[in-house]
Amino acid sequence: MSHKLLILAQDKDQYRALIEKAQLEDLEFATQPADDVDIVLGEPSLIKAALGSLPALVWAQSIWAGVEPLLDSAARHNYVLTNARGVFGELMSEYVIGYLLAHERKIFQRHEAQKNKLWDESDTGTLRGKTIGLLGVGSIGAEVALTAKFFGMNVRGYTVESETSRHVDEYYHPLESDSLLSEIKVQQQAVALQSTVLQSFASGLDYLVNILPNTKDTRKIINADLLNALPSHALVINVGRGPAVDESALIEALSQNKIAGAVLDVFEKEPLPKDHPFWTTPNLLMTFHTAAPSLAKDISNLFFENYELYLEGQPLMYQVDFEKGY
Amino acid sequence: MSHKLLILAQDKDQYRALIEKAQLEDLEFATQPADDVDIVLGEPSLIKAALGSLPALVWAQSIWAGVEPLLDSAARHNYVLTNARGVFGELMSEYVIGYLLAHERKIFQRHEAQKNKLWDESDTGTLRGKTIGLLGVGSIGAEVALTAKFFGMNVRGYTVESETSRHVDEYYHPLESDSLLSEIKVQQQAVALQSTVLQSFASGLDYLVNILPNTKDTRKIINADLLNALPSHALVINVGRGPAVDESALIEALSQNKIAGAVLDVFEKEPLPKDHPFWTTPNLLMTFHTAAPSLAKDISNLFFENYELYLEGQPLMYQVDFEKGY
Repeated sequence: MSHKLLILAQDKDQYRALIEKAQLEDLEFATQPADDVDIVLGEPSLIKAALGSLPALVWAQSIWAGVEPLLDSAARHNYVLTNARGVFGELMSEYVIGYLLAHERKIFQRHEAQKNKLWDESDTGTLRGKTIGLLGVGSIGAEVALTAKFFGMNVRGYTVESETSRHVDEYYHPLESDSLLSEIKVQQQAVALQSTVLQSFASGLDYLVNILPNTKDTRKIINADLLNALPSHALVINVGRGPAVDESALIEALSQNKIAGAVLDVFEKEPLPKDHPFWTTPNLLMTFHTAAPSLAKDISNLFFENYELYLEGQPLMYQVDFEKGY
Repeated sequence: MSHKLLILAQDKDQYRALIEKAQLEDLEFATQPADDVDIVLGEPSLIKAALGSLPALVWAQSIWAGVEPLLDSAARHNYVLTNARGVFGELMSEYVIGYLLAHERKIFQRHEAQKNKLWDESDTGTLRGKTIGLLGVGSIGAEVALTAKFFGMNVRGYTVESETSRHVDEYYHPLESDSLLSEIKVQQQAVALQSTVLQSFASGLDYLVNILPNTKDTRKIINADLLNALPSHALVINVGRGPAVDESALIEALSQNKIAGAVLDVFEKEPLPKDHPFWTTPNLLMTFHTAAPSLAKDISNLFFENYELYLEGQPLMYQVDFEKGY
């Protein structure tokens, strides 16, 4: 039995070349949506637009980690959705460590001194002995935890999942909202308790890094309460999803020096609108959803492994739960 | 028998407080050079100035790695000189990785984009798979090699010493000038061969990092020949000693884009004179001998360990060979 693959991505030619070169067994290519396409590889929004014309779809492999468009409750969910995982951890770790070192090593301050011909011998900070808090300890968070331990940091992890990384020194868990409500019966108390867990997680952190996916439970998790719980020398990094940050609360915290700085790679709206206050918020460094690019080579390798499992009728890797959203 | 310690350092009060707190056995303090001082702890230039008034000196512990003033052939050498080692590796590694990531992650370019309200999605580089060449693989070089391997780099090491770090993939050695001369008899040929080893070491490097001490063999080791042997995308970092770099050759290489950039923490003359061309050389980032500060706490711990050995009559750690210069 032969399988038919449709590639829906801006760089679809690059993907097709890589996949053709791998000479996968029993695989043919479709160039547009068709009745006999059973596999699609591509960007979530393009896959969503094509869902209506893919009646035989069995498996969709997203080339990105984030798959929000496909989670829409109005969209079809009768196929296996897998996303890109396991390939971003090392790139994300480089990004996080790079910006932590830029902060501790005063890389921008020294450059200003150079421009002003000043021999700036002021003290240099170190990562060693600092405490980092990771919001989210999936495959990316585990890699960041490993890297943080390599540089001698203490690592806290906040996660709903089991405690899979041994490089996290201390785990914090959100309270299960269902069981909590049945016990407490009062939603306001539940929210207050949740907030207490997060504040205890944030207390005393030198660095807070968000790596959580975008779900109803992670929206605005970095809010005024959490920011107020951080020490004033803390640095906040968001490489997860834009909606995790309450943007107004972050602007207030930075403008009032409640925290030392923030580094953002993701935003509520991307590209960031020209009139957004973030462009000129003090002590805020931005990158442009460039922390961990989806490299066609990495994603193709992941597709090859999953295609082998697909041929063998085995469960695919990195399946997304449409309910949980990751 | 009691011992007498003289501390000669700008932050001598901090050292004295740390040492007093440790309550070392049989140790008294002197506040100025005296006939009965057998131990001195301090900065090399201050120690050198006091040598004439320390007739009973047995051991001098430098608080810095570099001890050039004390190597002067006109100065006394009839005491044991130990320098600071083993405490700088982690700080140096943070510095090197920080600047490599600033380069690959375009940290300055993204910041410029932010100032201009530009959503700059241009590609991001990675450390993974890159090749780093270390000039010098002592205790600092070994730590940088370990860190480079952690980030997935290939590591080359150029060293006169034995191959002590297993994190170096490929070692290069200078030719022993004596044996070489006896074989070849012609000094010009020897110099040419030496240069060939270095050029083969430099060929294909993405990053070149100098960590060598200042000796007659390391002066201007980063010269026009070596810089010409590097690929045009290479980044050069000097955290060793200023004289290792032929400053004119580096300025020419940077100005003519023969290499992509340089990061310097040390210079021929420090502080760098106001009229030095480095202040405005393109693609050059400078820091100000701040890569790996001598932290009084670290150096005191090293002194405590050596004092134990001194009391027991054991060989001290980190002895400097006055001939070799390290």
